[in-house]
Amino acid sequence: MKLVYADNNATTQIDSIVLDEMLPFLKEYYGNPSSMYGLAEKSGTKIKEARQRVAALINASEDEIIFTSCGTESNNTAVHAALEKQPEKKHIITTRVEHPAIKSLCERLARNGYRVTFVPVDKKGNLDTQLLFKSITKDTAIVSVMWANNETGVLFPVQEIAEDVRKKGIVFHTDAVQAVGKIPVDVKSAGVDMLTLSGHKIHAPKGVAALYVRKGLPFASYLIGGHQERGRRGGTENVASIVALGKACQLAGSRLEVMNTKIRAMRDRLENELLEKIPNSAINGNRENRVPSTTNVGFNSIEGEAILLMLDQLGICASSGSACTSGSLEPSHVLRAMNVPFTSAHGSVRFSFSTYNEEKEVDYIVEKLPPIIARLRELSPFWKQ
Amino acid sequence: MKLVYADNNATTQIDSIVLDEMLPFLKEYYGNPSSMYGLAEKSGTKIKEARQRVAALINASEDEIIFTSCGTESNNTAVHAALEKQPEKKHIITTRVEHPAIKSLCERLARNGYRVTFVPVDKKGNLDTQLLFKSITKDTAIVSVMWANNETGVLFPVQEIAEDVRKKGIVFHTDAVQAVGKIPVDVKSAGVDMLTLSGHKIHAPKGVAALYVRKGLPFASYLIGGHQERGRRGGTENVASIVALGKACQLAGSRLEVMNTKIRAMRDRLENELLEKIPNSAINGNRENRVPSTTNVGFNSIEGEAILLMLDQLGICASSGSACTSGSLEPSHVLRAMNVPFTSAHGSVRFSFSTYNEEKEVDYIVEKLPPIIARLRELSPFWKQ
Repeated sequence: MKLVYADNNATTQIDSIVLDEMLPFLKEYYGNPSSMYGLAEKSGTKIKEARQRVAALINASEDEIIFTSCGTESNNTAVHAALEKQPEKKHIITTRVEHPAIKSLCERLARNGYRVTFVPVDKKGNLDTQLLFKSITKDTAIVSVMWANNETGVLFPVQEIAEDVRKKGIVFHTDAVQAVGKIPVDVKSAGVDMLTLSGHKIHAPKGVAALYVRKGLPFASYLIGGHQERGRRGGTENVASIVALGKACQLAGSRLEVMNTKIRAMRDRLENELLEKIPNSAINGNRENRVPSTTNVGFNSIEGEAILLMLDQLGICASSGSACTSGSLEPSHVLRAMNVPFTSAHGSVRFSFSTYNEEKEVDYIVEKLPPIIARLRELSPFWKQ
Repeated sequence: MKLVYADNNATTQIDSIVLDEMLPFLKEYYGNPSSMYGLAEKSGTKIKEARQRVAALINASEDEIIFTSCGTESNNTAVHAALEKQPEKKHIITTRVEHPAIKSLCERLARNGYRVTFVPVDKKGNLDTQLLFKSITKDTAIVSVMWANNETGVLFPVQEIAEDVRKKGIVFHTDAVQAVGKIPVDVKSAGVDMLTLSGHKIHAPKGVAALYVRKGLPFASYLIGGHQERGRRGGTENVASIVALGKACQLAGSRLEVMNTKIRAMRDRLENELLEKIPNSAINGNRENRVPSTTNVGFNSIEGEAILLMLDQLGICASSGSACTSGSLEPSHVLRAMNVPFTSAHGSVRFSFSTYNEEKEVDYIVEKLPPIIARLRELSPFWKQ
């Protein structure tokens, strides 16, 4: 068995079609798109095409797309734009289970004089939307709620939240990094003001992302420099990666159906077989309301890190939570917010698929994981059969 | 004649050696360096090597290098870190000829309650350092002065300024995007606190840069998210481009001698021959104190844009100033700060070489440019022989 890569929520491999599309811009077409000569025109033309492709995937207009360097930059930019444009407002609403690019930013802002409401989730990871709605005040500058959770795949009712929030005249942003490419995302029907998506989660390279900003929404740049992105994001355009993001968005749109059928079935089969073969295991998160590609399984009384190391030895790549918080000894803040018991949260493993994954890879995981869990439990002082 | 690319201050082509080094990280080694498995380890190891290579070029330590997405992000980060860590200080000192990534940022900060001193330059582009020193107050949070000007190549006395500024306990940052790879840059002997360098100016791809932050300097992140860059810059590492930046820095170090000899001689020859063949032309900037690769030549009574279009038709890529301010009808803010007469500033063209340029390209420019200038002057209502 070659490598079984089941950590696509952390990052994805670049699609060979995407790589082919970007390579000329790492080679012969190196012109700075801001320059005056023919060499540079080609870059400008392809950036425009990429912008159209990104916009098409989320039903936006071309001029509503700002290219950035990563999901973190898009998220930071969205929050800062809302605060900068409403300096009198000092309240932010978000959730307890956001990615660090929102969570850590809001914690910093809380130390700098802002009031932040972190809306809780229930034990299935569902957001307490009533509490969210009740938290809104005249002082609220922005509500930022992720579309799909990176660790559990649980979906939040973005459309319902956006409707209520925007009715009250408040800016609504969603971090859709883990939703785009996995489920249909339509900024118009969802009614969001701003939306973050990232390239390296959908088979484009690392180092490129986008921020959708609804036409007419007051906006302030976060990276301030030249006139790029119509004055909304300084810095020479990362042409090759932008071209790649455009192509990846086009491909992602064409693969949504496979995601929702084949990949969903594979994920469900993986879960069912693991739950059947491994006692004291449980799915973290609302099984009925998730992206089709993610599962987070808790195995009582053992350490997730130990499971991952043993999986790695067998060529299986998985995760114990967000890659962006790895290195920490704390169990995932998402699972803690869900009140997953400590012993189970510690032994939780996320498998996340892309359309590249195959049925036989599920077979392989289902074959290899149960003996690993059994072995580790034998060694665990916490395990009592 | 194939393309004569003489706009290397705008951007450079990726070195094929650099591309070869980065390609595996766009293909098989796609792991997120924060992940736990073997696939990801390779990314982490190569990022470490890249960090060492960047550090080596500027005589820094590995852990003093923060990877960012562009020079603009590095510059923005440096200024914000200084302000965030000294919230009581509300004064910034910079120059009138900075890149937009400092200039526009400082203009924004000036609108948001900061006091900014923009130190002037003389007609040769030399900085009024005495005025800079006199501007320092107890309220000064940061002094940010570029090392080499992007439009004229003129060098500022960074070491002298850093010494005085830091003696007074004030943070000193330099935007060295146009110096690194063109002249020796040593952060220790220069005595700077922070320094910006950018990949795409030294034959690495667009979309990657670095910020040097002296060990011990209080620092605050600008992009806030995961634990990447030791908690100093959130966002999944742009592995391939970071690897490329490392290799490009290594190559740049090995090419400094060629820059200072062959390229300097080529640049000087270009200038001398143009001045000789074209009446009413003049070099903008202090000829004795510039990077070896840049020339900015003013041709009286014509439009730079017209010159560039005609050069482009002959396959010559040059610039009328910073690519980052193109699209503007105003003449360059740098040339205006130097009090270059309006009629000459409008007709100024920058040629910027890299070690890729060849003698025969100089011959070609010297052959083609004089008739273009003569032609345009015939058409110009401002030209009186």
